Amino acid sequence: MIVAMQEAASEEQIQHVIERLVNMGFEVHRSTGTRQTVLGAVGPRFDFDVRDIEVLAGVGEVHRISAPYKLVGRSFRPEGTVIHFKNGVTLGGSDVHVMAGPCSVESREQLFAVAESTSRAGAKFLRGGAFKPRTSPYSFQGLGEEGLKLLRAAGDQFNMLVVSEVMEISQIALMLPYVDVLQVGARNMQNFNLLRELGKARKPVLLKRGIAATIEELLLSGEYIMAGGNYEVMLCERGIRTFETYTRNTLDISAIPIVHKLSHLPMVSDPSHGTGRRDKVAPMARASVAAGADAVLIEVHNEPEKALSDGAQSLYPEQFAELMGQLRIIAPAVGRKLA
Amino acid sequence: MIVAMQEAASEEQIQHVIERLVNMGFEVHRSTGTRQTVLGAVGPRFDFDVRDIEVLAGVGEVHRISAPYKLVGRSFRPEGTVIHFKNGVTLGGSDVHVMAGPCSVESREQLFAVAESTSRAGAKFLRGGAFKPRTSPYSFQGLGEEGLKLLRAAGDQFNMLVVSEVMEISQIALMLPYVDVLQVGARNMQNFNLLRELGKARKPVLLKRGIAATIEELLLSGEYIMAGGNYEVMLCERGIRTFETYTRNTLDISAIPIVHKLSHLPMVSDPSHGTGRRDKVAPMARASVAAGADAVLIEVHNEPEKALSDGAQSLYPEQFAELMGQLRIIAPAVGRKLA
Amino acid sequence: MIVAMQEAASEEQIQHVIERLVNMGFEVHRSTGTRQTVLGAVGPRFDFDVRDIEVLAGVGEVHRISAPYKLVGRSFRPEGTVIHFKNGVTLGGSDVHVMAGPCSVESREQLFAVAESTSRAGAKFLRGGAFKPRTSPYSFQGLGEEGLKLLRAAGDQFNMLVVSEVMEISQIALMLPYVDVLQVGARNMQNFNLLRELGKARKPVLLKRGIAATIEELLLSGEYIMAGGNYEVMLCERGIRTFETYTRNTLDISAIPIVHKLSHLPMVSDPSHGTGRRDKVAPMARASVAAGADAVLIEVHNEPEKALSDGAQSLYPEQFAELMGQLRIIAPAVGRKLA
Amino acid sequence: MIVAMQEAASEEQIQHVIERLVNMGFEVHRSTGTRQTVLGAVGPRFDFDVRDIEVLAGVGEVHRISAPYKLVGRSFRPEGTVIHFKNGVTLGGSDVHVMAGPCSVESREQLFAVAESTSRAGAKFLRGGAFKPRTSPYSFQGLGEEGLKLLRAAGDQFNMLVVSEVMEISQIALMLPYVDVLQVGARNMQNFNLLRELGKARKPVLLKRGIAATIEELLLSGEYIMAGGNYEVMLCERGIRTFETYTRNTLDISAIPIVHKLSHLPMVSDPSHGTGRRDKVAPMARASVAAGADAVLIEVHNEPEKALSDGAQSLYPEQFAELMGQLRIIAPAVGRKLA
Repeated sequence: MIVAMQEAASEEQIQHVIERLVNMGFEVHRSTGTRQTVLGAVGPRFDFDVRDIEVLAGVGEVHRISAPYKLVGRSFRPEGTVIHFKNGVTLGGSDVHVMAGPCSVESREQLFAVAESTSRAGAKFLRGGAFKPRTSPYSFQGLGEEGLKLLRAAGDQFNMLVVSEVMEISQIALMLPYVDVLQVGARNMQNFNLLRELGKARKPVLLKRGIAATIEELLLSGEYIMAGGNYEVMLCERGIRTFETYTRNTLDISAIPIVHKLSHLPMVSDPSHGTGRRDKVAPMARASVAAGADAVLIEVHNEPEKALSDGAQSLYPEQFAELMGQLRIIAPAVGRKLA
Repeated sequence: MIVAMQEAASEEQIQHVIERLVNMGFEVHRSTGTRQTVLGAVGPRFDFDVRDIEVLAGVGEVHRISAPYKLVGRSFRPEGTVIHFKNGVTLGGSDVHVMAGPCSVESREQLFAVAESTSRAGAKFLRGGAFKPRTSPYSFQGLGEEGLKLLRAAGDQFNMLVVSEVMEISQIALMLPYVDVLQVGARNMQNFNLLRELGKARKPVLLKRGIAATIEELLLSGEYIMAGGNYEVMLCERGIRTFETYTRNTLDISAIPIVHKLSHLPMVSDPSHGTGRRDKVAPMARASVAAGADAVLIEVHNEPEKALSDGAQSLYPEQFAELMGQLRIIAPAVGRKLA
Repeated sequence: MIVAMQEAASEEQIQHVIERLVNMGFEVHRSTGTRQTVLGAVGPRFDFDVRDIEVLAGVGEVHRISAPYKLVGRSFRPEGTVIHFKNGVTLGGSDVHVMAGPCSVESREQLFAVAESTSRAGAKFLRGGAFKPRTSPYSFQGLGEEGLKLLRAAGDQFNMLVVSEVMEISQIALMLPYVDVLQVGARNMQNFNLLRELGKARKPVLLKRGIAATIEELLLSGEYIMAGGNYEVMLCERGIRTFETYTRNTLDISAIPIVHKLSHLPMVSDPSHGTGRRDKVAPMARASVAAGADAVLIEVHNEPEKALSDGAQSLYPEQFAELMGQLRIIAPAVGRKLA
Repeated sequence: MIVAMQEAASEEQIQHVIERLVNMGFEVHRSTGTRQTVLGAVGPRFDFDVRDIEVLAGVGEVHRISAPYKLVGRSFRPEGTVIHFKNGVTLGGSDVHVMAGPCSVESREQLFAVAESTSRAGAKFLRGGAFKPRTSPYSFQGLGEEGLKLLRAAGDQFNMLVVSEVMEISQIALMLPYVDVLQVGARNMQNFNLLRELGKARKPVLLKRGIAATIEELLLSGEYIMAGGNYEVMLCERGIRTFETYTRNTLDISAIPIVHKLSHLPMVSDPSHGTGRRDKVAPMARASVAAGADAVLIEVHNEPEKALSDGAQSLYPEQFAELMGQLRIIAPAVGRKLA
């Protein structure tokens, strides 16, 4: 931490700040210039709030020079995290994956049709929602446990790993028998009670970035899960809210290389929610893989115009197969291959 | 709902869209121009998703012309909602209120000192956090039930109504005996499971706008609570996330008159979280009352520099008293008075 | 400037950075901790780019600790700038002003009607556009010099100071005989060639904040004008672009107290462009004065529904008069009075 | 245009709106439902302001159903615009181009070194700044005409087309003999006087999106140039301003497929300014090509650490060559090849 004192700060104020920093466990280095004094505080701690120093009398500005997280930081595992699944699939290594499926599980017929076509095109992960967060209380809220059962059955039949969203603490135990990956939606990225409980689970978690969350906040939310002992965390960019209204959100592709630099965790991209428009999904999926994503999440529906939710952004099965072919060309440009 | 068909839409496509709209319960009016056909769908329904029509073949654009909510809309209660509290205090009427207190309840001594000074200056509501949502898992997380007991005791002693934040469904029952208003924080504005449970409670709820939530989304979250039968809801502007970095958030003062136009619910403003800087709190509190806020939330701490959270934005008791004097001058400009 | 070296930085790299800083004219203080080295660079310079240091090998992070401007900074004129006009009117002192008029000058009849009603209600400044920046090449582009003549005539008749927008260098000389204040619109806030020429003028300039400009960038644009020798600069908040779509822009009221803290320049607020909706103008004008604005800009039209531009946000004359009455009540709350 | 009248609108108000629409040249279709009346206005005009109708009494909401531009729209040239340069190079067709060079032209030695290495790696366009827009009046402002001469000389020697930024009307005539493409920077995207003059030029223009400009506004600025008769316009995404602070801007990759859908103009991407960080340039350049960009702009410097501007985001020549190899792999995934 660097503390730049105000030009008018008194010696007494400076001493008070130094004392406070020492009490917090820092080693303090003082630089006194002609105009102002600057304090450099270095030490092993990272779990402090710079604002505790900012409020002290005589303080001008305070800057953090170390990250506010530890477990999710790249230096904790410089080689990168690779998640190993039971069927031999790995995520975070040289394989690039596509996670495909409908926004909501609606029926056995719908789900199996989508699972069949996407697995045939190469997808190893089936994703679908059983519990649905909806902006309006009057919208379809998901099939619940019935949806989970269908997901498991389809996953087993087509040898796909199952990904589904958990919205609430009480759903965790219910979901564990059915899913291979617990997804946390953008709206719950800072539902800290939920994150803490997921830290106790022993299943991989896919944590989506909130639409107004900075990358640092996404990492801190990952830290909540890892701090509980669950180290199998994937982060996911799914679009941030900006002034542009043509798309529902702006998919922040640059978050992919940034997370890879700051953290060892795998990084997934969700161009379906990131754009909200079917014809933008394929270009943004290609862009994500070209930028280094470890996986992409693609909404696919056998009959998008009849979907109970998000039909507007779901690909038709044949569009999905075409996209897989394009991703197969792109992955080698970043030294990887499509799984 | 207005459906503008694409210029190239076929008659068959147009008929298919009309059929779908009729099935949804709409009365459909068709306008066929030289270049394109436009369909006007009118009817009593408001709980539909325009995207269900957008995905149909031949459709160009779809615009909603009625609000997606009903209970929170101004027309549901044109005269406005006034919340009556047991001690005779009313919120939403001609009185403007100030809700004051520390960010976190830290100790009996701290809380009683703040309650004493703020009630003396005129505050009728004491707000303080017992459960604290923190970005980092390593920060102080609140005193829990012990904090609630202290809040109740201080509220009783100084004749103040108690406001505190609920973060999770399991905390609702625990909090009900202690508090007069259940606050939902910005990060939980779209925690729909929590909102639905609060709809079953019979205590006023103060719902904060998420930092990336549109005003329409804030209203829809209020609709979740009202749909459960709890009609005592206050909405609260607390700053939105923008590109400006000087302040933590940008307090969107214009949300105050907008909510008053669209909804009958009282509107509160939180300049402390909205700015994150002590010296900006008073100007923004004055601005909020001048723009018509029904109440303002002000963080006050007897010793801000020792606060366990948000000390940087807490007012000193004497600053708070000065602010109350200014608000007393301003309220009459909007035909109201400071309670 | 504070330079935090990377943990792995070599002694050679550190020496190289120190040398570069010394060459730039800084006095350098070095703090070597157990994990990393931090350099504090202090000195009289403020016109440097921190990125010149960021690119050096071994550098982790660089933070500026002094402002990147000098002339616009509060410390340059701690007492604040007061602009004195020929007719005895002062701006930036204890008087709060309202600048009123139509978006575009459309005709003699229109302009004189607005000037008459607004001056009667107390406005001392008449503002109107003769050159209009329009998003579409097909929209009305203003009356040009004919509009300037009308403005001057109306200003003289009703004893009002004239404010009008300059869009281009070649217009400056043309405008000088007619106007008392040269306004720079939001889209030209970083038209540096224009700013530099205005620095040579000897007329007050009202500089509007760009819709995506940070407050620091606004101050730097003011610095361009002052660096040319023109010290009579007013800054103006007129709304920033955010994700909220209900209003055209989000008026950032907090910019008012922030500019007053960082700079000595007067701060104006433009709630008409800031909201784009007539019924939000009065609440936001009141909020601006309550937050300390030195002046507010209000669009008024005698027949808004016939306006050639911005009719949707123009007040009717009687709404304007009512607003003036409200501002008269609010100004004393901040120790001022409406002029 | 669709006009939804308020539920309480009177017949007289409805007739008044219809009359106004007819006067504007529209054919009007009326739908009267049980709750409200909706008017559909169709016709050949596109150069109107919906707000002229919004302000009429009794009007609820107004929606545009046709684009506010004509010449830049895809339907004006469904096959897409291909720009042909004198040396046989085409932009907008099947070739993907890379435009490379230093941010500022600093010296003959610097420029020729960069031109030599980038042309060897395959770049056909040399870009460099002679006039530099700088946020601070104290930063390096470019070499001016001397820089243009160096650009022309280097372009001729290495058979590269020259791209350079024009900031002001008076620079156009000066630049024409030296450059092959006139670039308009993000800050000037809505400098309408400049755009209008460029419409009279007969040289291709590369128009960058402003950091807070919507895609529609970018298209409207292109319309200004085309309306003057200059049809050789390229649009360019270079990052928008969002709340994320890790990168200088957020490169909105989705703008690439969106512009391609709405317009026939070629679309360029600038990952150097879009990210502001050297190590993010290559991933975002790859993503841009994967999303369908017609060209990418890459800042390259022979000695970035000595650059007078933007050194932090400039690639080293060997990084540039490696990137070219990656783009060669990706282009075929979208049916194209790197030129």
